[in-house]
Amino acid sequence: MSDTPFSSAAADAVSSDSLTVMGGGLVGSLLALYLARRGYSVDVFERRADLRRAGAEEGRSINLALSDRGWKALEGVGIGEEVRQVAIPMYRRVMHDQQGQLTFQPYGKENQAIYSVSRAGLNQKLLDLAEANPQIRLHFNQQCTHVDLRERRLKLRDVTTNTEQTRTFQRLFAADGAFSAVRAAMQKTDRYEYSQSFLEYGYKELNIEPGPDGQWQMEKNALHIWPRGQYMMIALPNLDGSFNCTLFFPYEGENSFAALQTDEQVLAFFQKVFPDVVPLLPDLATEFFQNPTGSLVTIRCYPWAFADEVVLLGDASHAIVPFYGQGMNAGFEDCSVLDSLIEEYHNDWHAVFAAFQQRRKPDADAIADLAIYNFEEMRDRVADPRFLLQKKIESKISAQYPDQWMPLYSQVTFSHMPYAQALANGKRQESIMGRLMQHIQTEADYDLPEVQQLVQQEMNQ
Amino acid sequence: MSDTPFSSAAADAVSSDSLTVMGGGLVGSLLALYLARRGYSVDVFERRADLRRAGAEEGRSINLALSDRGWKALEGVGIGEEVRQVAIPMYRRVMHDQQGQLTFQPYGKENQAIYSVSRAGLNQKLLDLAEANPQIRLHFNQQCTHVDLRERRLKLRDVTTNTEQTRTFQRLFAADGAFSAVRAAMQKTDRYEYSQSFLEYGYKELNIEPGPDGQWQMEKNALHIWPRGQYMMIALPNLDGSFNCTLFFPYEGENSFAALQTDEQVLAFFQKVFPDVVPLLPDLATEFFQNPTGSLVTIRCYPWAFADEVVLLGDASHAIVPFYGQGMNAGFEDCSVLDSLIEEYHNDWHAVFAAFQQRRKPDADAIADLAIYNFEEMRDRVADPRFLLQKKIESKISAQYPDQWMPLYSQVTFSHMPYAQALANGKRQESIMGRLMQHIQTEADYDLPEVQQLVQQEMNQ
Repeated sequence: MSDTPFSSAAADAVSSDSLTVMGGGLVGSLLALYLARRGYSVDVFERRADLRRAGAEEGRSINLALSDRGWKALEGVGIGEEVRQVAIPMYRRVMHDQQGQLTFQPYGKENQAIYSVSRAGLNQKLLDLAEANPQIRLHFNQQCTHVDLRERRLKLRDVTTNTEQTRTFQRLFAADGAFSAVRAAMQKTDRYEYSQSFLEYGYKELNIEPGPDGQWQMEKNALHIWPRGQYMMIALPNLDGSFNCTLFFPYEGENSFAALQTDEQVLAFFQKVFPDVVPLLPDLATEFFQNPTGSLVTIRCYPWAFADEVVLLGDASHAIVPFYGQGMNAGFEDCSVLDSLIEEYHNDWHAVFAAFQQRRKPDADAIADLAIYNFEEMRDRVADPRFLLQKKIESKISAQYPDQWMPLYSQVTFSHMPYAQALANGKRQESIMGRLMQHIQTEADYDLPEVQQLVQQEMNQ
Repeated sequence: MSDTPFSSAAADAVSSDSLTVMGGGLVGSLLALYLARRGYSVDVFERRADLRRAGAEEGRSINLALSDRGWKALEGVGIGEEVRQVAIPMYRRVMHDQQGQLTFQPYGKENQAIYSVSRAGLNQKLLDLAEANPQIRLHFNQQCTHVDLRERRLKLRDVTTNTEQTRTFQRLFAADGAFSAVRAAMQKTDRYEYSQSFLEYGYKELNIEPGPDGQWQMEKNALHIWPRGQYMMIALPNLDGSFNCTLFFPYEGENSFAALQTDEQVLAFFQKVFPDVVPLLPDLATEFFQNPTGSLVTIRCYPWAFADEVVLLGDASHAIVPFYGQGMNAGFEDCSVLDSLIEEYHNDWHAVFAAFQQRRKPDADAIADLAIYNFEEMRDRVADPRFLLQKKIESKISAQYPDQWMPLYSQVTFSHMPYAQALANGKRQESIMGRLMQHIQTEADYDLPEVQQLVQQEMNQ
């Protein structure tokens, strides 16, 4: 590993089978491991400091939910077991109502779980593995300030020394996040499709400390949700007994960031709508005002590839909102899909990049849509008794016809089916439910002979 | 007028009621005239050279169709009459079929017309007027390389001397086009909504020379169209007897730019599908390969204003495809709407900018949608007999109920109704037509008593 800038001469001397990865975050560091396994020499450039050293960035989403797609990608470089040891399975949702009453919803079948992992911890582990690999060189504090696509040249500014180097690349893999510098260069090419769109909601991280005995103050193996229609809070467990809470909250309006301006207002609001969690958040008001408010962006773009030179992965090509818990999983799946295409096309990069963007773009669009749909569902439909009844009926169908009816959530979370196919299945299921629900007024109606007959007809189609 | 860069000291000395306009194109120069009429001192910065001097840019869309919204905006600064003298009214569409047969479609009622004007000629006239105004200073060859929104500072690079100046601004009006440098700075602010999307069609300018006697070789007072389903060509008359043709053509596919690679292929293709125009295009193959292929972008963004400091207008905030002939008209209407808001809010810029973007954004979205819809209609429906029958029936309704049924095209082209309202009316009309057309198989069916009764019912609702 080297933090020192290269001279131009050194840059030009880079051998032609060396690959360049922009971004040493979750996707960039995993990708480097995949590429190194295929025998390539890899240089990884990361804008931020090495997060394994002092002063790692705070205030970002600290916990992430790893599910099957992510696991498969980690297992592809042989680190599934190692990560599993620091991951906390969450087998069910625990819903907290305004009186502190709890209800429960399993995520899948028995033993199916999503896993709470620390973003920083996982990133550190991936960087450790990358650093230990003799084919990978990590370069921190390197901000990409310019990309010349046609000349295959990068400008990198060392943010510690404020010096700039120019570096050539043969092939550039951009995993540099939602505000990718590489994508910014692609965006200037003719006929580039691009959109960025924000929800009118921000998020705020809050922290539930471990109990006095270092134990979890709520059920450990669960994702906790405080759904409140127009806003909600969630909490994921950490290994040290703490939970990381995230409040998703409108920027403006009656209940909003704009409306809460003083410690007293924050405390009164939480006391009213999240009463059971207030005793667990001793630093609530301080954290509320000191932690940054994050925004929630969806980014779509196309193409992802520039000839056989540049390809975008992860948030750089498909940043999504977090309401399906799939952002990291989708980025990791990019790595395993790309790797399988390198295999399939025998390292013919032009074919690999072309196939990657063609195959993966519909899936990225689908998971982006699903994440927004889940947000809207949470916001608009969660209080609708008909909607809740429908969800119960769907569970019954799934239990009765397990081979014909996998819930959409399971298709996304516990399968490796392409996201676009899951979305199409979900739409089909939704239209079936629209027909069935016309005959169903109560949960018990499901067992009526005529309803059972209708369900059977739908399953046979 | 001055082309010389300012020193920093001079920049800081700019008085606080001086306004900065970025872009000296059609919208920027018209806006400068509006602002000057309200007593403001205005500096206009334009990236390109003064197009009134040698070497004006070629190869761009040379003719534009000015309609009522544009005229109103020109009349607002008292130059309607002057422009009208160099504008050619086009009273109808002349459709050229593949055998060279002509059919005709009036644009509106008698004497209603859209007007062919030279983009460069109109821009020159607006610049002449701006230059003659002692309150306006024009600065050419000034490329905006950086905008610091919070510090209200611009960097401008003089492209002739390659020197850069920094300049402060109090209020910045960005009319710097579809790839606005000012918008690029706004796009970096948090939660900025932005999308750019291209049609899979490009356009190519071709030129029909004047006849030997300097006369027009086709009907002068008309917009000529060669509709061919998946592609089309149009031609607008110029004062000198020439016509400017524009071919709208897919980039890829059977009939496409990609498919025409040699002079012979171009000539054979035109001979086959546009036979009547081939004798009028003596330089066809040369022009086809030498003129650039333009792309067709729709840009949407929001917000348009940054506090009371910056506002985007014209293509900078709402670039649209040309299929409704409203790009320039919408940009000019921005100027008259903004001017009316300055009046209404007594120069309270914060209120003016806020009201402008709130009022105008839905209209910009509507005309963007209408332009794409017209493109799709032209591409997919123009050969559908049912569609053509529906158009005829709509004409009959409009003739019979002139007060209740203004055709959508007229609402957009010959009225000052907000575009969003026109779009809503158009959708309502479309659903009425959907109901009526179920009872109509031929043009004559319109006169059937039961159809007449249905029409009357719809008109009374």
